[in-house]
Amino acid sequence: MTPELILNTMMNKDYFSQWMGIEVDEIREGFCRLHFTVKEEMLNGFGIVHGGIVFAAADSAFAFACNSHGKISVALDVSISFLKPAAINEVITAEANEIHTGNKTSFYDVTVYNRQDAIIAVFKGTAYRTVDHVVETHAKAD
Amino acid sequence: MTPELILNTMMNKDYFSQWMGIEVDEIREGFCRLHFTVKEEMLNGFGIVHGGIVFAAADSAFAFACNSHGKISVALDVSISFLKPAAINEVITAEANEIHTGNKTSFYDVTVYNRQDAIIAVFKGTAYRTVDHVVETHAKAD
Amino acid sequence: MTPELILNTMMNKDYFSQWMGIEVDEIREGFCRLHFTVKEEMLNGFGIVHGGIVFAAADSAFAFACNSHGKISVALDVSISFLKPAAINEVITAEANEIHTGNKTSFYDVTVYNRQDAIIAVFKGTAYRTVDHVVETHAKAD
Amino acid sequence: MTPELILNTMMNKDYFSQWMGIEVDEIREGFCRLHFTVKEEMLNGFGIVHGGIVFAAADSAFAFACNSHGKISVALDVSISFLKPAAINEVITAEANEIHTGNKTSFYDVTVYNRQDAIIAVFKGTAYRTVDHVVETHAKAD
Repeated sequence: MTPELILNTMMNKDYFSQWMGIEVDEIREGFCRLHFTVKEEMLNGFGIVHGGIVFAAADSAFAFACNSHGKISVALDVSISFLKPAAINEVITAEANEIHTGNKTSFYDVTVYNRQDAIIAVFKGTAYRTVDHVVETHAKAD
Repeated sequence: MTPELILNTMMNKDYFSQWMGIEVDEIREGFCRLHFTVKEEMLNGFGIVHGGIVFAAADSAFAFACNSHGKISVALDVSISFLKPAAINEVITAEANEIHTGNKTSFYDVTVYNRQDAIIAVFKGTAYRTVDHVVETHAKAD
Repeated sequence: MTPELILNTMMNKDYFSQWMGIEVDEIREGFCRLHFTVKEEMLNGFGIVHGGIVFAAADSAFAFACNSHGKISVALDVSISFLKPAAINEVITAEANEIHTGNKTSFYDVTVYNRQDAIIAVFKGTAYRTVDHVVETHAKAD
Repeated sequence: MTPELILNTMMNKDYFSQWMGIEVDEIREGFCRLHFTVKEEMLNGFGIVHGGIVFAAADSAFAFACNSHGKISVALDVSISFLKPAAINEVITAEANEIHTGNKTSFYDVTVYNRQDAIIAVFKGTAYRTVDHVVETHAKAD
């Protein structure tokens, strides 16, 4: 399976990324860049984007990138630092870059930034690589 | 303002926590426990709850707890470890406990668990405490 | 092998814990509490204990606790938050508690505190559990 | 004060960095690269470099870089991921790069690597920026 097919297989079932309106701009082995637009339902009690939404965008980029090699990989540990808030209607991009892939784990840096290239958050994640492979069930079904 | 009033003021505008169906079970200074039910729009590409949703529940509990003292506090750094997946229709609880509150920062542990008391994720967050206070605008409006 | 034997086997070769003067107060499966005294060589450029020393104490407690089950375990990801500085001659304790042990990974909370029970740092670590066992070579050799 | 003077002022009192044999290769505002050689006293119970030593090298690079602007800055939260072990006599480099500096906090990425450019650890740190300035006391005294 190619990274594109793996992505489509995952995206077909990823209802939360769909709800967020996530669009993938680029996918290849060990890399993913995606974007979405902040809508009103994504705001927190201070009128800025909820931390969970910023995390989710980075987490989806991480998931699409670390599964691109074909082995099912799941997030173990993540740290995220919030550097700047984001407001309604802003277009937010998350870019995941592979730093290391071993036999059992892989490690990614994800940067979340706005249209002015200001960094909103920095996300660092370790995934556990299972022995199973992403299977093309849902992509086939559609 | 009491912790309850601060919570209501925040919740009135927290459209994402509302979308998630978050209900707060207990709020007091330095503490918050809340729950929500996993619905289909919250799933990721592997049919389990999206990491962003688990993070968001913990982040909301963290935000409600660390703003309960009255000073507006915003998340700086968070680390989260995912210990167990969660499925559709599961009821998930997040409980935030204050470990330390200084002049400029405060530090919380948040545990996310299911109805069988199995830990789904452990979240640790540092907030920056601004000099501003949570103002009762929206609570007044209602 | 008992947790005590595993600890002795590790400690015999752990030259850095020896240099720090680490003494283990309690060891059992999934738990370790140890202490040391801050000496002049442990200070940083601001005259307080170096962050690497605080980390090392927590990391040793983590290592002794997560290897206590017998399988060789190594640190993957750690986050640490520094809540309070420590000065020369202070006695510092690190206590590691198991939160979760799965087949491949285990997860620990470590709290570092002083003699007044003030928390100096909070450390959260994930270890990867190998299939190898801690072997009693060095303990036998002595 | 220049970054070099600030570094010298800190290094004169940083007895642990001195004990490690840390040598700074390059210092400028928002950047520091340093190296040291693994010696026997730095090993842990598995015969590889202790996690506290790897952390300390990254933490010193972080401290020298984030204090280079003149304001005293102290570590708040750090996450570190260990990607590869290091052995006795290896020369280890830590390079700290500024990602963001705000009024109250600054955020750095630190990469720790060996002579073969293999990454040993990735370190991400947030510092709190105090209102005090690094004072040249010890540099003057010498």
